[in-house]
Amino acid sequence: MTTATGSATTPDELEAIVAAAAAAAPIWARSSAADRASWLRFAAGALDAAADELVPIADRETRLGEIRLRGEVGRTSGQLRLFASVVEEGSYRELTVDDADAAASPARPELRRMLVPLGPVAVFSASNFPFAFSVAGGDTASALAAGNPVVVKAHSGHVELSRRTAEIVAHALETAGAPPGSLALVEGRDAGNALVQHPVIQAAGFTGSLSGGRALFDLATGRPDPIPFYGELGSVNPVVITPAAVAARGEELAQGLVGSFTLGVGQFCTKPGVVFVPSGAGFEALVAALVPSTTGGSLLTDRITDAFPEGIDALTADASVEVVARGTVTDGGATPIVLATDAAAVAARPETLLQECFGPVTLLVRYSSEDELHAALRAIPGSLTATLHSEPGDDVAATLDLLQARAGRVLFAGWPTGVAVTWSQQHGGPWPATTSLHTSVGATAIRRFLRPVAYQSAPQQLLPEVLRDDVLATLPHRRNGVLRLPVT
Amino acid sequence: MTTATGSATTPDELEAIVAAAAAAAPIWARSSAADRASWLRFAAGALDAAADELVPIADRETRLGEIRLRGEVGRTSGQLRLFASVVEEGSYRELTVDDADAAASPARPELRRMLVPLGPVAVFSASNFPFAFSVAGGDTASALAAGNPVVVKAHSGHVELSRRTAEIVAHALETAGAPPGSLALVEGRDAGNALVQHPVIQAAGFTGSLSGGRALFDLATGRPDPIPFYGELGSVNPVVITPAAVAARGEELAQGLVGSFTLGVGQFCTKPGVVFVPSGAGFEALVAALVPSTTGGSLLTDRITDAFPEGIDALTADASVEVVARGTVTDGGATPIVLATDAAAVAARPETLLQECFGPVTLLVRYSSEDELHAALRAIPGSLTATLHSEPGDDVAATLDLLQARAGRVLFAGWPTGVAVTWSQQHGGPWPATTSLHTSVGATAIRRFLRPVAYQSAPQQLLPEVLRDDVLATLPHRRNGVLRLPVT
Repeated sequence: MTTATGSATTPDELEAIVAAAAAAAPIWARSSAADRASWLRFAAGALDAAADELVPIADRETRLGEIRLRGEVGRTSGQLRLFASVVEEGSYRELTVDDADAAASPARPELRRMLVPLGPVAVFSASNFPFAFSVAGGDTASALAAGNPVVVKAHSGHVELSRRTAEIVAHALETAGAPPGSLALVEGRDAGNALVQHPVIQAAGFTGSLSGGRALFDLATGRPDPIPFYGELGSVNPVVITPAAVAARGEELAQGLVGSFTLGVGQFCTKPGVVFVPSGAGFEALVAALVPSTTGGSLLTDRITDAFPEGIDALTADASVEVVARGTVTDGGATPIVLATDAAAVAARPETLLQECFGPVTLLVRYSSEDELHAALRAIPGSLTATLHSEPGDDVAATLDLLQARAGRVLFAGWPTGVAVTWSQQHGGPWPATTSLHTSVGATAIRRFLRPVAYQSAPQQLLPEVLRDDVLATLPHRRNGVLRLPVT
Repeated sequence: MTTATGSATTPDELEAIVAAAAAAAPIWARSSAADRASWLRFAAGALDAAADELVPIADRETRLGEIRLRGEVGRTSGQLRLFASVVEEGSYRELTVDDADAAASPARPELRRMLVPLGPVAVFSASNFPFAFSVAGGDTASALAAGNPVVVKAHSGHVELSRRTAEIVAHALETAGAPPGSLALVEGRDAGNALVQHPVIQAAGFTGSLSGGRALFDLATGRPDPIPFYGELGSVNPVVITPAAVAARGEELAQGLVGSFTLGVGQFCTKPGVVFVPSGAGFEALVAALVPSTTGGSLLTDRITDAFPEGIDALTADASVEVVARGTVTDGGATPIVLATDAAAVAARPETLLQECFGPVTLLVRYSSEDELHAALRAIPGSLTATLHSEPGDDVAATLDLLQARAGRVLFAGWPTGVAVTWSQQHGGPWPATTSLHTSVGATAIRRFLRPVAYQSAPQQLLPEVLRDDVLATLPHRRNGVLRLPVT
């Protein structure tokens, strides 16, 4: 019998699961866009309909609270629906035709190119988003949308929720017409390691820690036949506040920062972890005044609960770091904490001071000149986001160049927590933020699970349907170098 | 002093070269599409103008002959010009805007997304295309087009040509307005290994052997900060001929095959290495009759010259393999050779019988049933191409599925040698054909050297120029999910 804390998938069970995914793969690969979109929408509807059952399980396993979790169910079903519309719109296939050209030297044959699905995809789910980055989350939605079956490695922090979600979504997919083996779940670290190395698996998505992600990345790239490993691993999400911004709206910025670094008990991958503030501008005092009144909240898992004070200790062990403010917590949860150091220390010891620390903590970094700021920014590792708070009169060109070089999303107002699931979203950045040149959130995440195939001089009846002239005309495509909109 | 056989770049020289590339990178990243296109065209013109000087050097070093080499210069300059037009056309940036939506739940901020260059790129050039896959070849052209400086590792087989090409192209780029450090050359295996591991290098392109490519792939992915490694490593390029096709045009097919597998002395990565022919149809006899009259030709390097008979020996050591025909060579070059085996042997011992063997050899594989054919096709490793010769009455759906699953380009007429440089080209396939889900030839090769950045709620004047509303309207882009053509 399985237990709520997880029971490892055996090697034989894994083989059966992977074999079912392999059997489903050709059916997914041949499925029409209309079918795939309807399967995804049916799964989205089933997830929404099960919210009353799933949210209490999620709350018991993750302590994230009903309001947040209900919102996350909506985000997750919305994500499935976005990918349904991405599939229908058709640009994701990158349909491209070059007609034959006998006059070219050498003469050119006809070529028609499109993206096709890879085959079964492994998805490693995250602890901190039990719906949106888990069993039916963004990696799964984009891999299915691309036309691939998915095998999910459950996160040990919410095993019961993972099982129930997998049952509901797999059942919905099959009810809608998808083949058996479209979505399955494995449990346990050994099964996860075997999964990413299994010959049937053609790519993997991952959201989690730098150490866990690196270990799986090494397994994926170390295979006899390496596969793409799309990991989202860790991010300090630098924020820069100019002196003029503090002067113009210091209190509002302090409120925004406290709200953002404590949101979800500081367990978002986009938490602002390092905030550059002008020396002597009084911003620290503004933040310090707000922190004591914030509520705590329990961290996701016992492991994260243990790691949080260890992370704080590692930072405060540096002689430059002082505690600016501590929250007052009455619920036994994690105490929000604000630390401060200076830009010279960050530039000198980035390995120590720029470690991502999961939980409600942020590090204010005082700078007294633009040179000092820029030297410290050059030490910032790749991040998912970088935020600039400036005023219209500020000359921020050089600062912006440094921020953009280190991040996948650059924000000019607001705070990095909160990641809209849209066509333009970019949730990914230079290593270690991600292991690839792609996003794990938003429409283009689908590109991760596709590869190009070109057909040379193919008779129309042997071409994939979408590359035949009549269907091609109804989809966005490029012909002889010219982009064309669909004829409707 | 350097010598024509190559002198290793020292660690200090490498540092200086890489530092110059790092200094050039921000200038390339900020360059306009118009400037970059003109730099590429100027380089193309300089290459064409230097053909009379470069072709004799290339011929001395590679033995490929003047006609082929002159053609390759034109292919290489044409490739630079194609990428100039790709840059001007603008779709490659994937410009995408989602307007703010206060009515969404949660409210959505404005997001604008584009692809930006990665930074300095390492390119490892190939022996068999001393122009088109070398110093100024496709990897270099696409990396420059994307906005990145390039450091090329010279192939030891054509060092003098590499040096002179690098001088000419680097000088042309600078004359056109590009910064110093835009293109540089390193020599020697140690320098190449150091290059792919250098913190400044952000991606690498490679064309060459499976063993060499795998070693560099392991270095690139084993870095503390792994980088993308785009390798094109090896390919057996299966061909399937149906009984009906042999009956309808056996002689023509035999002529085509002999022309293709001996082209360039069998040293193309798209050489048809494994040809499935119906048992007893007499196709082997047709091929055998043609081979003795083909000319030989010298192989590219001493190493390849030594490896060719070793590869033949490895194949003929298998009890199932027989020699069908040998060419008659009077020029001391490599003897074209045709081997034959049966489909059951291929299915049973793919590791032995499906090794890529560089040089003028091909392996005919007799099949007596579709089941036998399909079992053998399932053993074919990932390839750049797969070719089907069938007749309109043939039911080839299942065969096509198997071929497409193993290749990046599927051909229905003609032969796989000859790779047009166009928008639709796909030169890449499942491992070991390539290490990525991309192409190394054709317009979309540029995507390998770009990463996405999204700007959230950015004031128009702080956006990159191409994302500002007025410029955006003149380029292909997507707004709120809808693809839009440029307003001209």
